[in-house]
Amino acid sequence: MKFDIPFSDRLASSIDRKESRLVVGIDPRLDRLPAELASLDPEEALTRLGCGVIEAVAAEAAAIKPQIAFFERWGWKGWRALEAVCKSASEQELLVILDAKRGDIGSTAAAYAEALLGEEAGPPGPFVDALTINPYLGSDSLEPFIQRTNEGGRGLFVLARTSNPGGAEFQSRPGDPEPVFLQVARASEKWGQGSMGDCGFHGVGLVVGATHPEEISRVRECAPSANLLIPGVGAQGGSVEDLGPAFDARGLGAVVNSSRGVVQAFEKNTELPWQEAVQKAARETRLQLESALTA
Amino acid sequence: MKFDIPFSDRLASSIDRKESRLVVGIDPRLDRLPAELASLDPEEALTRLGCGVIEAVAAEAAAIKPQIAFFERWGWKGWRALEAVCKSASEQELLVILDAKRGDIGSTAAAYAEALLGEEAGPPGPFVDALTINPYLGSDSLEPFIQRTNEGGRGLFVLARTSNPGGAEFQSRPGDPEPVFLQVARASEKWGQGSMGDCGFHGVGLVVGATHPEEISRVRECAPSANLLIPGVGAQGGSVEDLGPAFDARGLGAVVNSSRGVVQAFEKNTELPWQEAVQKAARETRLQLESALTA
Repeated sequence: MKFDIPFSDRLASSIDRKESRLVVGIDPRLDRLPAELASLDPEEALTRLGCGVIEAVAAEAAAIKPQIAFFERWGWKGWRALEAVCKSASEQELLVILDAKRGDIGSTAAAYAEALLGEEAGPPGPFVDALTINPYLGSDSLEPFIQRTNEGGRGLFVLARTSNPGGAEFQSRPGDPEPVFLQVARASEKWGQGSMGDCGFHGVGLVVGATHPEEISRVRECAPSANLLIPGVGAQGGSVEDLGPAFDARGLGAVVNSSRGVVQAFEKNTELPWQEAVQKAARETRLQLESALTA
Repeated sequence: MKFDIPFSDRLASSIDRKESRLVVGIDPRLDRLPAELASLDPEEALTRLGCGVIEAVAAEAAAIKPQIAFFERWGWKGWRALEAVCKSASEQELLVILDAKRGDIGSTAAAYAEALLGEEAGPPGPFVDALTINPYLGSDSLEPFIQRTNEGGRGLFVLARTSNPGGAEFQSRPGDPEPVFLQVARASEKWGQGSMGDCGFHGVGLVVGATHPEEISRVRECAPSANLLIPGVGAQGGSVEDLGPAFDARGLGAVVNSSRGVVQAFEKNTELPWQEAVQKAARETRLQLESALTA
């Protein structure tokens, strides 16, 4: 049973085995589909695109990160496609980081945890290795999710410092004795106490945008045992050369997300079949990360 | 077309017409169903419970607030039930505040806005009057939602100060020059500039827990034109007697949520058919709010 192994160890093993720090974000937009999928109904298109990307990147990516909003956009049919996509990744032994950024309190947080990290199919829970969550409502709101890291072998990535231009507005305010995102980072070490893996990292990671490399270092100081999920490379302007402080001497401790740069590669590279174009972009991005790491 | 009228005016009109500041939260738990629904499959049970509550409270509640997590809990079938429940409320001219607390950036935020405040059925968007959202990612992350208040007649309630014990951890930190929740409250006046209604309130309201009455006053000072959505009365310990500062002289400016206290009323009041027990609890809660307001 794969969830018998802590998430952080499954992630470290995937990184080592594939020599990859790449997470491929799956944000399917039905107005930007490969030509051969363009005439399908939404559910079929989402499923075929998602499963096709998974097949293409399985050997190149440490994990995939489906963005739930692009499935919700199509209502219950989108949710059915999401379950099929997560199941497909799970069958190919590709880790699934579900990007849902949920946050709520009490029994509501427990219902989200059951849906997205639970054991009952229907919702994608049984096929999800890790989930992104929002800390605004405080530690007690995260408890039902943390319980799944302590007892269920699942992982979390808590939003700390996001990659968007307005991310600093509440996360890193001028004049604060300590920015909120560093308080979140420090708290993650406490939240992760019950899910430490043999690799030296625990199950409660942090999202820190690549657009703020100096803040990655500050997060790493406050949260030495948290895995970092780093979006914002490529289209958003972050550079892989700046990500060194995220990793330890073994090259563990972080994974880097690329979404459009990989999944939409068929738009630029029209000479290859779409899945081959995606595979090629994934391999190039993976190798770019590996060489930045050794430099 | 109902969305031609700004949300704040639709809310004020519903409050006046029904003499009600009550929002009934629909958090359906399938382990606590009325006996006659207990043998149904999840989708049918969610739909029958939700539509039954709507029918029972339509004359007593200013709005209903379905909590999306309790539908997501059942995956795509739960989402299909959610659409049916929101549609049913819309047909009975009962305002729908969808409690989803979504928050993300760029095209992802736009996808959530399309799903939950859009015009295409499948997702519940066409039947939703207002949505709860999370501000942690900053003003730019809220833009796609705010656009729906400015151009689409929809409403928002942004999390400011939540009702849970840990709500203060990041929202109201000791030593901060200004607590984050008051910065959110001040910002709401800017976010609402493009959606002012004839009633004097705009479309970008705030969630402030009843468990912190002194903070309701502070929020009101910072955000004089924001409607407040106040959870935390009853089971969570908040008292309706403390909510005076939320309202203006006309008794407008806030609505108060009760979930379990109304919807689970059939568990305590077993002498009535379940819908009548729910209706009775809704009426009593409504009248309790009205008398606290005039006191």
